[in-house]
Amino acid sequence: MEAIAAANLGHASSYGNDDYTRKANELLKQHFGEQVESFFVFLGTAANVLGISSVIKPYEAVICTDLAHINVDECGAPERFGGFKLLAVPTTNGKLDIEKAKRFLQNVGFEHNVQPKLVSISQTTELGTVYTVEEIKRIVDFAHSNGLYVHMDGARLSNAAAALNLPFRAFTTDLGVDVISFGGTKNGMMLGEAVIFSNAELAHGFKFLRKQAMQLASKMRFISAQFIAYLSDSHCIKTASHANAMARYLHDQLKNIPQITVTQCVDANAVFAIFPKALTETLQQETFFYLWDEDKNEARWMTSWDTQKEDIDNFVKKIVLAIEEVEL
Amino acid sequence: MEAIAAANLGHASSYGNDDYTRKANELLKQHFGEQVESFFVFLGTAANVLGISSVIKPYEAVICTDLAHINVDECGAPERFGGFKLLAVPTTNGKLDIEKAKRFLQNVGFEHNVQPKLVSISQTTELGTVYTVEEIKRIVDFAHSNGLYVHMDGARLSNAAAALNLPFRAFTTDLGVDVISFGGTKNGMMLGEAVIFSNAELAHGFKFLRKQAMQLASKMRFISAQFIAYLSDSHCIKTASHANAMARYLHDQLKNIPQITVTQCVDANAVFAIFPKALTETLQQETFFYLWDEDKNEARWMTSWDTQKEDIDNFVKKIVLAIEEVEL
Amino acid sequence: MEAIAAANLGHASSYGNDDYTRKANELLKQHFGEQVESFFVFLGTAANVLGISSVIKPYEAVICTDLAHINVDECGAPERFGGFKLLAVPTTNGKLDIEKAKRFLQNVGFEHNVQPKLVSISQTTELGTVYTVEEIKRIVDFAHSNGLYVHMDGARLSNAAAALNLPFRAFTTDLGVDVISFGGTKNGMMLGEAVIFSNAELAHGFKFLRKQAMQLASKMRFISAQFIAYLSDSHCIKTASHANAMARYLHDQLKNIPQITVTQCVDANAVFAIFPKALTETLQQETFFYLWDEDKNEARWMTSWDTQKEDIDNFVKKIVLAIEEVEL
Amino acid sequence: MEAIAAANLGHASSYGNDDYTRKANELLKQHFGEQVESFFVFLGTAANVLGISSVIKPYEAVICTDLAHINVDECGAPERFGGFKLLAVPTTNGKLDIEKAKRFLQNVGFEHNVQPKLVSISQTTELGTVYTVEEIKRIVDFAHSNGLYVHMDGARLSNAAAALNLPFRAFTTDLGVDVISFGGTKNGMMLGEAVIFSNAELAHGFKFLRKQAMQLASKMRFISAQFIAYLSDSHCIKTASHANAMARYLHDQLKNIPQITVTQCVDANAVFAIFPKALTETLQQETFFYLWDEDKNEARWMTSWDTQKEDIDNFVKKIVLAIEEVEL
Repeated sequence: MEAIAAANLGHASSYGNDDYTRKANELLKQHFGEQVESFFVFLGTAANVLGISSVIKPYEAVICTDLAHINVDECGAPERFGGFKLLAVPTTNGKLDIEKAKRFLQNVGFEHNVQPKLVSISQTTELGTVYTVEEIKRIVDFAHSNGLYVHMDGARLSNAAAALNLPFRAFTTDLGVDVISFGGTKNGMMLGEAVIFSNAELAHGFKFLRKQAMQLASKMRFISAQFIAYLSDSHCIKTASHANAMARYLHDQLKNIPQITVTQCVDANAVFAIFPKALTETLQQETFFYLWDEDKNEARWMTSWDTQKEDIDNFVKKIVLAIEEVEL
Repeated sequence: MEAIAAANLGHASSYGNDDYTRKANELLKQHFGEQVESFFVFLGTAANVLGISSVIKPYEAVICTDLAHINVDECGAPERFGGFKLLAVPTTNGKLDIEKAKRFLQNVGFEHNVQPKLVSISQTTELGTVYTVEEIKRIVDFAHSNGLYVHMDGARLSNAAAALNLPFRAFTTDLGVDVISFGGTKNGMMLGEAVIFSNAELAHGFKFLRKQAMQLASKMRFISAQFIAYLSDSHCIKTASHANAMARYLHDQLKNIPQITVTQCVDANAVFAIFPKALTETLQQETFFYLWDEDKNEARWMTSWDTQKEDIDNFVKKIVLAIEEVEL
Repeated sequence: MEAIAAANLGHASSYGNDDYTRKANELLKQHFGEQVESFFVFLGTAANVLGISSVIKPYEAVICTDLAHINVDECGAPERFGGFKLLAVPTTNGKLDIEKAKRFLQNVGFEHNVQPKLVSISQTTELGTVYTVEEIKRIVDFAHSNGLYVHMDGARLSNAAAALNLPFRAFTTDLGVDVISFGGTKNGMMLGEAVIFSNAELAHGFKFLRKQAMQLASKMRFISAQFIAYLSDSHCIKTASHANAMARYLHDQLKNIPQITVTQCVDANAVFAIFPKALTETLQQETFFYLWDEDKNEARWMTSWDTQKEDIDNFVKKIVLAIEEVEL
Repeated sequence: MEAIAAANLGHASSYGNDDYTRKANELLKQHFGEQVESFFVFLGTAANVLGISSVIKPYEAVICTDLAHINVDECGAPERFGGFKLLAVPTTNGKLDIEKAKRFLQNVGFEHNVQPKLVSISQTTELGTVYTVEEIKRIVDFAHSNGLYVHMDGARLSNAAAALNLPFRAFTTDLGVDVISFGGTKNGMMLGEAVIFSNAELAHGFKFLRKQAMQLASKMRFISAQFIAYLSDSHCIKTASHANAMARYLHDQLKNIPQITVTQCVDANAVFAIFPKALTETLQQETFFYLWDEDKNEARWMTSWDTQKEDIDNFVKKIVLAIEEVEL
């Protein structure tokens, strides 16, 4: 917020031709490698759709998990704007299973089928798990050896960096990831997302694509300024580490409650857990959360940069009380 | 062919404003009901994509099976031209499982998800099975009670009519199916497919959509003339019945060969069968066919209006001989 | 800016389900009529493209001037996202000439041609002129009597309101304008634009369209809060009046310089003027501006909410000095 | 027609993998150069839209005349399927004026504007005129020196070849034209159009694009067979020469009638003429034709491969008689 206010003083050139944007791009080079080219857009959906659209053709296709944000939560934006098809691989832990992905390669060259050209993975995954360096390397190898690009949906990339305790480049560009959506909104920013290409050739023409996709901010400095603050002094890592620690803390409290079953590894800042259906109303009053799977009554509880231990203690206390009431 | 040659004599108005097209539309009304509106396009992919595009918006979605032609075999045409998403329900017999389809209705009204608006089924299915009247009725009820349209991909609709021994309308418009793709190419026509809307309101603006989709034939009479011939004297039913009978005959021969496992009900003109991998080359030399599932070595053998008993006897003989050779 | 900072305190529901957004929508109803429905998007290009896309089909077309922002400055976003064609009417003063627009109605009903369905005008126009109430009324009459909607690109709507000295509704919804893009970025806001529909029916499904178009802000309150501040205490009118007055002041200074020709009526906050080519470099150093027509050496000089009399005096002084130097 | 009937005998592989298609592609190489790659689609609109879409991106744009078929008569298919914008240059004789086209190059590199990437010209033009070799050379030079491709809409390419008395390659590929739509429907074929790329690189991925665009004919041999007949024994040139001669003959008759003004050079098979409004009904009863410009009462009279001298004599006689009646 202070970063934005600072960007508000004085006049500045518009459409990204300003010092804030130059500085933010410079910082991204420091974190992802000198060879990268980066661009700012308004939000994660756009970062994903445009990053991918920039490197594939509409008759080419994207392999991702069936739970991928691009497959489920973007109201068909990839299909509408990009015109391309998503080939969904079922997943149980949020990670892409290479063996299952292979079947989509059977019809390469056959004109009746869309042609796989990119693998998209989410880091952290939609189930709150985090790919290890080794797992990403295997996916990149699989993709590149089959002529496919690799895209990483990094709406929560800072949480992954904090969880892995690694610099961003160590689990992205250094491993050969070609396009990255790097978000900050879910970790405290007001709005804005970066699309990072691993080299200038992949970024060719992106500025026109961004404008045509209605994602060119005239006063871009307000986005860039946030990224500068976000990337400075390890700000993003500190806030993400905190969020991750809070999730771990929540998990530790929950495991003592036999009526609750945590269903996924708590690698970052999400806890997936099945809880007694009778508690739903009470808990939703306490804090809003998504009911991930209605049939199983499985919730997704996210922690964030401003979650406090007391918030969690409180929440867990509510759960315990509610269970007692229900079981009376 | 004779129908086309006849249409070649004399001059005629272009773009469908001719006697052949009027007559063909008239015949379709006789077969599908006086209230229907029909249009001709070049091919089945277009009939499917345009028929659906005409009644839904790009943020609305189509529920279909994972094996549906629109989902697998149209190189992303639905996504590219229509902009809409397909929500695929796994199937083992080619038919849509309503219970599994229901999960896509959970997020109606939630703007992050595409909004289901249409159910598309294929008759005959991609696995050669045929929906009964009862099954279609249940799907239409499910769809309409949830505010969804029903589209039927009828690339092989004549084979279904022959198999059910029913007039077309008895298992389509009479049951409430809203949009139908009615094809003839796979049953002897040179090219051309009809899009049939169950009422004029659904067809509103279709002629412009067709032109914009590059599907308006200037000399449309050459398509219409084929449909006239196709629909006259039960021609399409006779040829389809023959094809169905030939598939049944093939199935009967195969069931005596223990090394061959027929995997789907032979309701119409397709036989799906697992056969010894070692025979592949020999059989492909005999006649071209798709290897439906490479892992299982499952073939799709189609019969057609011009398949002869001797062709099948010959083919089965080849199989038997090849098995003997292999087993020696 | 203060409005944004205030919106930063406390937690709030995301995606527009918050008090700021409700309040901002309420204010828009006060200014445009109780029956309107409004939505926030990131920027003007999106407001234009989505507002129009929401009410027409891709085979329908938009009549606008050849200088319209949607026709020239949006890098093909209308065509790419909306799929529709723009029918451009030549203009010399930025206003739409109804007589010339009529020729596009000749082919209504003829499927080879796109079908005009909407007239889009810009208020203020791209040439800094302002439509009178009478002029808008005539355009709406022309449009509605031919079955066309009317869209108003109001990137500078406050400047028009200030120039006309009328409330917003008096020259928009009260006259029958169907869809309005209402912008604030060019008048001091950080980002954000409203799409206003004159009734709920036209707005049907817009929230899905917005998400699919990658324009749904998760922390929408930061946009809404700006609109609240913008619309409160006549803030937007005061800033726009000031900008308009500054343009008028600039114009008054310029008319005494014989080497400068003002080419358009200075109705709002833009001055178009032809100046000696030799001055270009000197003036561009003083302040950035667009060379509107390179052949004529015609500049577009915009004034804004924070332009000061001294800025203009200074600028005019520079012009006079530069002319003297050049003429020596 | 005989060609199609011949293609009907015997079985053949589908989707273009047949001897007819190979032979037709071979013939096109003979006529346009060994290095070309060609593909068949159903109609001219598709040839134009797909040929262009294959070589440009949606944010790139096409410079053409305001009368170009792609700009006027394709119901927005270029915008809808290709997503690209057309930049229209006014023309009075159907030919592209390079000087006027240049203004669209002013904003190259500026992300708010679409980026010109291709020049499309029609040969013969929509006004029945024919570009000379010299004129085409100048356009290609202009285009290539500015990094633009050249596309030729050759719906009536045979008429141009006949008019110029040159082989096809002499005024297309030999001059550097990159993509050609080569049609036969307007010169006697039933349906089908070829897209010809001047080299394999430009054609990359076209087969997938064609399928995604719903233009892959399963029984492609019926199109190819027509092209074989069309290109053999100078068949297409003979028929086109005849049509051209008939237009010339019509023109010669008309010039003796003072009440008729021929408005365009009669280079090929079209005669544009202004005639007394009172004759409209009488003449439309005689033969259908387009009223090209209602205000001027200007007709477009096309001659074809099967127009006879007597038809023209008859038509001219009708004109003379009608004039006499009117003037009484």
